Amino acid sequence: MTTLEQFTPLFHPRTIAVVGASATTVSGGNRFIRNLRNFGYAGRIVPIHPTAAEVEGLQACRSLADVPGEVDYAYVAVAACIAPDVLRSGRGKVKFAQVMSSGFGETEDGAALESDLVAAAREAGTRLIGPNCLGVYSPAARVTFTEKTLAEPGPVGIVCQSGGLGIDIIRRGQSRGLRFSGLVTIGNAADLGAAELVEYMLEDPTTKVIGLYLEGTREGRRLFEVLRRANARKPIVLLKGGRTSQGQRAAASHTGALAGSQRAWEALSRQAGMPLVDTLDEFLDTLLTLQCLTPRATTSSRAVLFGNGGGTSVLGTDAFDRAGFSIAAFDSQTLATLKALSLPAGASVANPIDVPAGALQQDEGRVAERIISAVAASGVADVLVIHVNMTVILGFRHVDMLGNIIKAALRVRETDRTGMHIALVLRSDGDAETEERKRDYRLRAIESGVPVYDELAQAAKGLSALRVVEAFRARISPPNSSTRA
Amino acid sequence: MTTLEQFTPLFHPRTIAVVGASATTVSGGNRFIRNLRNFGYAGRIVPIHPTAAEVEGLQACRSLADVPGEVDYAYVAVAACIAPDVLRSGRGKVKFAQVMSSGFGETEDGAALESDLVAAAREAGTRLIGPNCLGVYSPAARVTFTEKTLAEPGPVGIVCQSGGLGIDIIRRGQSRGLRFSGLVTIGNAADLGAAELVEYMLEDPTTKVIGLYLEGTREGRRLFEVLRRANARKPIVLLKGGRTSQGQRAAASHTGALAGSQRAWEALSRQAGMPLVDTLDEFLDTLLTLQCLTPRATTSSRAVLFGNGGGTSVLGTDAFDRAGFSIAAFDSQTLATLKALSLPAGASVANPIDVPAGALQQDEGRVAERIISAVAASGVADVLVIHVNMTVILGFRHVDMLGNIIKAALRVRETDRTGMHIALVLRSDGDAETEERKRDYRLRAIESGVPVYDELAQAAKGLSALRVVEAFRARISPPNSSTRA
Repeated sequence: MTTLEQFTPLFHPRTIAVVGASATTVSGGNRFIRNLRNFGYAGRIVPIHPTAAEVEGLQACRSLADVPGEVDYAYVAVAACIAPDVLRSGRGKVKFAQVMSSGFGETEDGAALESDLVAAAREAGTRLIGPNCLGVYSPAARVTFTEKTLAEPGPVGIVCQSGGLGIDIIRRGQSRGLRFSGLVTIGNAADLGAAELVEYMLEDPTTKVIGLYLEGTREGRRLFEVLRRANARKPIVLLKGGRTSQGQRAAASHTGALAGSQRAWEALSRQAGMPLVDTLDEFLDTLLTLQCLTPRATTSSRAVLFGNGGGTSVLGTDAFDRAGFSIAAFDSQTLATLKALSLPAGASVANPIDVPAGALQQDEGRVAERIISAVAASGVADVLVIHVNMTVILGFRHVDMLGNIIKAALRVRETDRTGMHIALVLRSDGDAETEERKRDYRLRAIESGVPVYDELAQAAKGLSALRVVEAFRARISPPNSSTRA
Repeated sequence: MTTLEQFTPLFHPRTIAVVGASATTVSGGNRFIRNLRNFGYAGRIVPIHPTAAEVEGLQACRSLADVPGEVDYAYVAVAACIAPDVLRSGRGKVKFAQVMSSGFGETEDGAALESDLVAAAREAGTRLIGPNCLGVYSPAARVTFTEKTLAEPGPVGIVCQSGGLGIDIIRRGQSRGLRFSGLVTIGNAADLGAAELVEYMLEDPTTKVIGLYLEGTREGRRLFEVLRRANARKPIVLLKGGRTSQGQRAAASHTGALAGSQRAWEALSRQAGMPLVDTLDEFLDTLLTLQCLTPRATTSSRAVLFGNGGGTSVLGTDAFDRAGFSIAAFDSQTLATLKALSLPAGASVANPIDVPAGALQQDEGRVAERIISAVAASGVADVLVIHVNMTVILGFRHVDMLGNIIKAALRVRETDRTGMHIALVLRSDGDAETEERKRDYRLRAIESGVPVYDELAQAAKGLSALRVVEAFRARISPPNSSTRA
């Protein structure tokens, strides 16, 4: 059985058993069933209940053993001490059991119970996920463990050690335009660890980029080997919790994780071309970068910034400088082309290109298109970052300036032969109306393969992750290596 | 004349002259007049127009010379080449003239024109602001240069070299709860520089904290001296554009600034206890910290984190570790108090305190109050950071859990004798409804003197700025120095 076949029942389960739903009140198990049904899950849901014939209007079974046929995925939300027996009762029937309960290896007294849980899973022939986690999200199969998730699938696969962060990644991620092939929370990872799930996602044809949130791992060597080989196939982004000494102690009481050497993770990141990020926001921005842009086998290190706002251009240049980009001045020919546009005083065309909104609105945004075309023609931009001060630009209400700029960028991209990456920064003032309009433009751009960031500093971070991936690919397969040979 | 008296006409002008408003179309001058009137400016507005008797329904004068009485503030938005003559025409009449026009020292050919403009201002006895800037915002006097600004004044004074960033600081700042005593954009700062304006804000009793965005300065020694002395009186936060070599070049073409040595700014920041930040968002978060919290003369370096979310707690601990905080474990007595609360499995009380939302909702938020009380009683928290995953916590709809947590924190603060700072992190999923509710809670907390951040990483940055200010104060006036003597 291939890894792909082995894990398909987890992400595309035909039968889900729910252990721990109540016949009289609303427990976690009940909420899980309701979430599944609201989300449109079309498979069979079997509540397990010792006495009730019906739970949530569904016919219940007394134990996992009584379920007719196979169970692809058992959701187990019961007191920690009875979880091993629950697993044993499903012997030979259950492919994957996800144990939500806390009180195992992450606590002082739970280590023995966790060993027993693992033993029970092995005896039953069941792969254990967790314990101390939250669930699986698989939009294509309409499986979810939390409400208000999108059913629209996408290319981002996530393995997340923390359940709460898993919810954040799904919900904050979807607000930012991320779309998922699947997400699994692994908690204490007593049996199934990140390595096997990454192997699955590397084989899964719907996954284009993989995100990992890890606090620690019991399978260091195997995981390192998987990650080291992975980037030749798909980019992996790592958010590592417990990278500081104080954070390590916090991780130990969260998932019982031994966080491992900080230096080892950094070395791995360098060796494997795997972007290593510090915050949830950087994680999401980096995943979005790799959802939208396809890394090349050459390093994109020359950025052109274009937008409205002089101070913003200066601070943005600082941010891109710190992220290792060069913001090179244009050659004389490109400068001549840009100067021929006769932009008003206050505009600067050297790179960063700073053009007042008033000039950008002229001719229904065609000024912007001419600038973007000139940048593409120059051949010196690996990355073009267009930034917009929405407060100012939405003030010009008689023309959809921002929509026109996005369209202009897409038109230029179609004829551009340099493969220049295009990214967009939508700078909002936080006002409710601005935010509303930003949501629309954000999704419109992302659907066209243009990643959107909140600020130039975030764009610099997100795009520097692209450089990490590209540098790795350039190393293992230099561009034009065949022609050089 | 004191500095306070000298600059009062700029921030509280009785007469504003507007040069460059059109009688037939809508230019920048017209928009400025409309903004002033919409904002409720109660002083006299005098449009200057060579031929029209009326502009924007207001009686116009032919030149500044013709205005009856004094002009406190002249807004000059005309072609750069005629700006010097405009200033000369106001000889003896105009206290402050702000020249918006670009095309001066920031361009290749504009240096001579800028010298002439400065000479004209000196001849006329007028202090020049700019050129190449946008205006003054003074909510108490209902003066603004952009729309949708709040009239509610506050304690934050800003000197901003960039006009566009000035708008961002006002508008994004007010969305985040910043309230301003005044903001002035200084552009090329050909005459009036940051030093004098900071001197004014140090004397202005309504200003509690000062923010500076600078790209460069012609008055290095003076500015350094002002800033070095300032922090004994009021905290100053510096956002410095052009700190990298590429950013310096961008700054030169934006405001003609010579950005100066990066090391000099860092040394000044250390010597003067002046937080130096890299991005606009850090600038706003830091100003908000100092708007809400009063620095002590002892360094706050021990942080307690409390909230829902294990992975978030781990990453937050990493962020506070990097920012130089200790996240120390509680003593046995505090641990015993916390354990006696019988929190469910999955909770961790060591510090970071991680409690599931389900437990926090019990007893209408009183669980949270007991935890916060125990933290205050422990005496080991210089800073208590309460973080909330809004997605999860707003899901419990039958009780206003977040409102109750905020109230609990305020109640504990009233009886707390340790002077522990309290801060709040409201973690949103970016969903429109969550954002709407976040706006309400944010303002509610800030009005009570609790700064609100979007993520723990941002809180760590903002609060580390507080530490910089406090370390400076501890150095110049050690706590209990009188009793020790």
